[in-house]
Parts: sequence; C-alpha cells; structure tokens
Amino acid sequence: MQDNPLDHLVKILSRLPGLGQKSARRIALHLLTNKDSALKQLITALDNTEKSIEICDICGNFDTHTPCRICSDTRRDNKKICIISNVADLWAIERTRTYTGQYHVLGGLLSALNGVTPDDLSIKELLERIRHDEPEEIILALSATVDGQSTSHYISDHCKEFPDLKITKLAHGVPIGGELDYLDDGTITTAMRARDRLL
Amino acid sequence: MQDNPLDHLVKILSRLPGLGQKSARRIALHLLTNKDSALKQLITALDNTEKSIEICDICGNFDTHTPCRICSDTRRDNKKICIISNVADLWAIERTRTYTGQYHVLGGLLSALNGVTPDDLSIKELLERIRHDEPEEIILALSATVDGQSTSHYISDHCKEFPDLKITKLAHGVPIGGELDYLDDGTITTAMRARDRLL
Repeated sequence: MQDNPLDHLVKILSRLPGLGQKSARRIALHLLTNKDSALKQLITALDNTEKSIEICDICGNFDTHTPCRICSDTRRDNKKICIISNVADLWAIERTRTYTGQYHVLGGLLSALNGVTPDDLSIKELLERIRHDEPEEIILALSATVDGQSTSHYISDHCKEFPDLKITKLAHGVPIGGELDYLDDGTITTAMRARDRLL
Repeated sequence: MQDNPLDHLVKILSRLPGLGQKSARRIALHLLTNKDSALKQLITALDNTEKSIEICDICGNFDTHTPCRICSDTRRDNKKICIISNVADLWAIERTRTYTGQYHVLGGLLSALNGVTPDDLSIKELLERIRHDEPEEIILALSATVDGQSTSHYISDHCKEFPDLKITKLAHGVPIGGELDYLDDGTITTAMRARDRLL
C-alpha cells in the first residue's frame, strides 16, 4: 500500500507535532470512516483558517484581522508589552486573564544550535515599536531554557538605548501545586534565593 | 477568542481520536506557523483522500478503486476470509505479511451497550459472500473483548448453514516479548491451558 492518497495523508498527519505513525493512521481511518461528519468538517475548518487567519502586523498574533483584537482593544494597557516566543505562549498567558497589556511575538528563540539569529526573530520590529510607542515596561516571558535566557539577555542588552524603560521577567520558583520532592535542584535553589517574607 | 475560524479548527481537531484540547491547539498553531509547508499540504492531502478513496464493495477496505487491490489480487488465496472489525485491524494484519487470504471488514463489533446490532455490521454481506464464494475457512480475528467474543459467537452461529466451512479464531496466549509478571491472569490461564508441547 504505497503512494496512494491515504498513505500520503497518514505521512502528512504523522509530521504534525505530537503525532506519530500510529496515531496518524488512527486519525486517517477515523476521518475516512466518518467522511461526512469528520473529514469534510475538518477540510472546511482548515480551509477557513487558511483563508481568513492572518498574522497581526503589530504583535505577530494570529487573528482574522490585523491589527488583532488585542492590539486594537483600547481598554488594554498599551504601556506594557509582554514578549513571548510564539502564539501558543500568548494564548497561555491570555487564559490566565491576569495580564491586560500588549504582546509581541518573537517567532522563536535565539539558538546557536539551530542557527536562529536575531534576524530570524522580530527583534528589530520590537525595538522599533519601543522607540515609537514608548511603553513603560517590557516583560520578558520567555522559557527558562538556555535559548530563552540568551534571547532575554540579547533583548535587554539592546534596550539599553531606552533609559526609562523598565525590563522585567517572569518570576522563577516552585510551581503552584508542585511537590518539592519532584522539583529539580535548579528550581529549588532559585526559589530559595528569591524567597518571600511572610511576616 | 471565540467563534473565530482558528478556535473552530482547534475544536474540530480536538475531537479526533487521541487528541485533546492542548494537542489540538499545538497542531493548529503549527499549521498556521507553517502555512505553506504544513497547512496547505494537509488540506491537499485531505482533499485527495476525500475525493479518491472509496470503500471496497466486496471486503469493506479503503482504496482508490473497488474492488480493492487485495480483493482483485489473483495471487491471493480466495479460499480464506479473515474477518476483522475495522480497516485498522486489516492494516495491522497486512503489516505482518503472513496472511495471503481475503478480508471482510465488519465495520464494528456487536455491542448491547452501544446499541450496535447485526444490521449495523456487514454480517449479512459476509454470509452472502460465503454462500457465493464458498471459502474453505473463515478466520475470526476480532478483539478478545466481550464485544469481540459475542460477535465471533454470533457469526459462527450463523455459519452453521455451511457444514463444510472451517471456522477458526486467532490464538490467545502470551504476547511475544511479553513479561509474565505484567500479564493479566486471564491471559496466563488461557496460555497455560493451550500450552504447546516442545519435545
């Protein structure tokens, strides 16, 4: 069974994040078994997404229009810009409903290993935006990995030209609900050093 | 963020087998981030599958033509029919390259709980096929679950009208590479009862 549309579909599906050969096969068969309810619906949903979703010119978010609903929402605090690596992280922060500022999607993280340079990310656009909009604070909400840290470092380094700009990063510490026993040493050390006074 | 094409896509994706909200979101963002390489390719692959894959009139397999390549392969033994619940099981058996007979896809298993009756499955077609093609053997390759067993029982019961037909089922026992320690009692009991003589 090679080179037929079904095998090709399985191959394409198995390349999606989180899917392997077996789960792709299962999904392809599910789609074929439910042609009207599943397959056609999925095609329509993908088609609509492909045609109507664009990248926001300002922040890099995905939306049906640009500027996106976050950038064009006047109730939001435009004196704060939260810098995230990708749209998934933006969604994760939005789900918490605690942040009301603006965003800036970098489109990745600097990585010597994967050959990602500052030109591959929207860092130039970010600096331009800071120059133009003059926010009071940028929040570096990047992963606590080597790549995340070096990207944070690179950005804060290039923000030295804005002396009034406050640069913050997310706090490190014990995750809520996390058991100390299962935490890595680095996190415990950081949490210990950054301990808060209760009384 | 509600009712926009992207949220709708996430909803549709999350209904696929094996995917949840989180993995669906991840896939949707991956598709959007790689519009040309991933999203468009997936749409094309789904479209092609939708247009060109049909159900084989004889066995119920999916293929670009009917009868499918298995039913129309004259080198295969048409004196044996292997009965499986769905196309995934057919693929699983084909991957072993040990079976060279024909197949018959039931389209599910009898289930009192889910209200699946004999009329929902292709049992009538199977009996018709046996009457017409006069195979020597049917192999019941159904799951070793209650539904699988009762379906096997129902079919072998209705095959009494063919006195020369040999009805077999897959052997039960210890899976190859399986550790006894982790096996359930039922399998060990069955394997013990059906033990083979070595010398």
